[in-house]
Amino acid sequence: MDSFNQQVSQITIVGTGLLGASLGLGLEAAGFTGKIIGLGRRQATVERARELGCVHEATTELGPAVAGSQLLVLATPLGAFADLLGRLAEHDHDGLVMTDVGSVKQQVCSDAVRILPEPGRFVGSHPMAGSELHGPDNAFRGLFVGCPCVITPQQHTGAEALALVKMLWTIMKMNLLQMSPAEHDRKTAYISHLPHALATQLVRMAARNDALDVASSGFRDTSRVASGDPYVWQQILAANRGEMISALDAFAQELVGLRELLDNHEDQQVLEQLQSGKHERDAWLSRTGGSCP
Amino acid sequence: MDSFNQQVSQITIVGTGLLGASLGLGLEAAGFTGKIIGLGRRQATVERARELGCVHEATTELGPAVAGSQLLVLATPLGAFADLLGRLAEHDHDGLVMTDVGSVKQQVCSDAVRILPEPGRFVGSHPMAGSELHGPDNAFRGLFVGCPCVITPQQHTGAEALALVKMLWTIMKMNLLQMSPAEHDRKTAYISHLPHALATQLVRMAARNDALDVASSGFRDTSRVASGDPYVWQQILAANRGEMISALDAFAQELVGLRELLDNHEDQQVLEQLQSGKHERDAWLSRTGGSCP
Repeated sequence: MDSFNQQVSQITIVGTGLLGASLGLGLEAAGFTGKIIGLGRRQATVERARELGCVHEATTELGPAVAGSQLLVLATPLGAFADLLGRLAEHDHDGLVMTDVGSVKQQVCSDAVRILPEPGRFVGSHPMAGSELHGPDNAFRGLFVGCPCVITPQQHTGAEALALVKMLWTIMKMNLLQMSPAEHDRKTAYISHLPHALATQLVRMAARNDALDVASSGFRDTSRVASGDPYVWQQILAANRGEMISALDAFAQELVGLRELLDNHEDQQVLEQLQSGKHERDAWLSRTGGSCP
Repeated sequence: MDSFNQQVSQITIVGTGLLGASLGLGLEAAGFTGKIIGLGRRQATVERARELGCVHEATTELGPAVAGSQLLVLATPLGAFADLLGRLAEHDHDGLVMTDVGSVKQQVCSDAVRILPEPGRFVGSHPMAGSELHGPDNAFRGLFVGCPCVITPQQHTGAEALALVKMLWTIMKMNLLQMSPAEHDRKTAYISHLPHALATQLVRMAARNDALDVASSGFRDTSRVASGDPYVWQQILAANRGEMISALDAFAQELVGLRELLDNHEDQQVLEQLQSGKHERDAWLSRTGGSCP
């Protein structure tokens, strides 16, 4: 934390929803001695984040919010990134390192190259934390603890910028992983974006079949993410369109395969699929400890 | 509870895994004054349930376990039901009401008619409680509280037997629903059996794509049920084969539909699907309180 405090006397968090506000709380709890500026589109949301102690100052004006900062974190929904990068390009300064918390990385990383005057100071990151709830009122300082955080530097990324962003998420007690934006987008399609789509379709189909009256705890957990913000998720699915289409195709094929096994009474093979699913999940849980909130 | 205690001085629980053992604990906690006999295939499991205080007596012999009982609950995996009903037919007596906790109802209800001398004293039920864990060591008395319980009486079902079984699950503080075995099996395909298959395929596909290293809390919850007992679930999928095939077909179609929307950039319709999924789930949660453990 000392090294971070020496390098950063002011940090700007753009978007003070669940992630941005939790980041502010986490920094404060970890002993950050500098100033935390919350920047938002709507004064009411940033003001609420300030009231809750998530940020020290609340503003809707980009220029002043960026001027004295050494680090800026984009924590808005994906759809706002391109516009924000355009406005940041005007107010950018030599001493500013930028990152984001977006769920899709190829788009924002290529936007940064296209839009920013010095894209080497932008480092894409994806802290894999959150819940189906949103807004600063649901924020808590431990949101990121124990979760994976994917950092997606590119060839042009500056070493100092990369080091600072890694330090930020290490302070948040996350498990850091480094990969290309493309690899990130492919992998998250399978463990986050596809599961979200499945949960949504599951709820809709259960409702259409009047089956929700018998639903219980298994259904509640399997479908939890479907209660997430539809606008946020529509933007994620659109930003990762190609990988989502591949994942949906592959998954539909998987279901057809299982259907054929059931239809042909190949129950030993059904059992083997259930066994391998349990084995892989249990092994993953014991590797990670499943401690992410 | 008084009325139950007047009618039942001894209850036999066949199978002292998570559900059977939790039922014993729940009865004791609710003030059941009679004797609880645990009957199992393996002495070690029933003995363990007795040690943990889930049952008063542990045995592997059907005849003596049934002789003095007014109520018997089949709580083994589905695959053992037909054999158990056959052995129960030999030891059946006038004063015995039988029920089960099986996840599929048409099979056991028709087996009961075929096998039992007086099927009017058998009432199918499905307490929709449980978790991915199993065995008496994971049992707890509140397992059933606040969860739905589907009762599936048929035309020949005796009124007294039905009333007693309803009383049992009411004492367990469950939300009772009554429907035909066929309706039960159709509905549970959508909210339990299909979700289980989706979770299994999701884990397998994520593992195959080396994506588990970035998986976090959303994936953990979406895939939780995939850690359930593969043998138990293979039997469930096989017992509800027809409905599972229909559900898999319908769901694969749903995914193809979403894929087309994404491919055609019909993002407004994608948004509307996400909105309706969230709306249906949030409405369901607020109806039920989501209080089932």
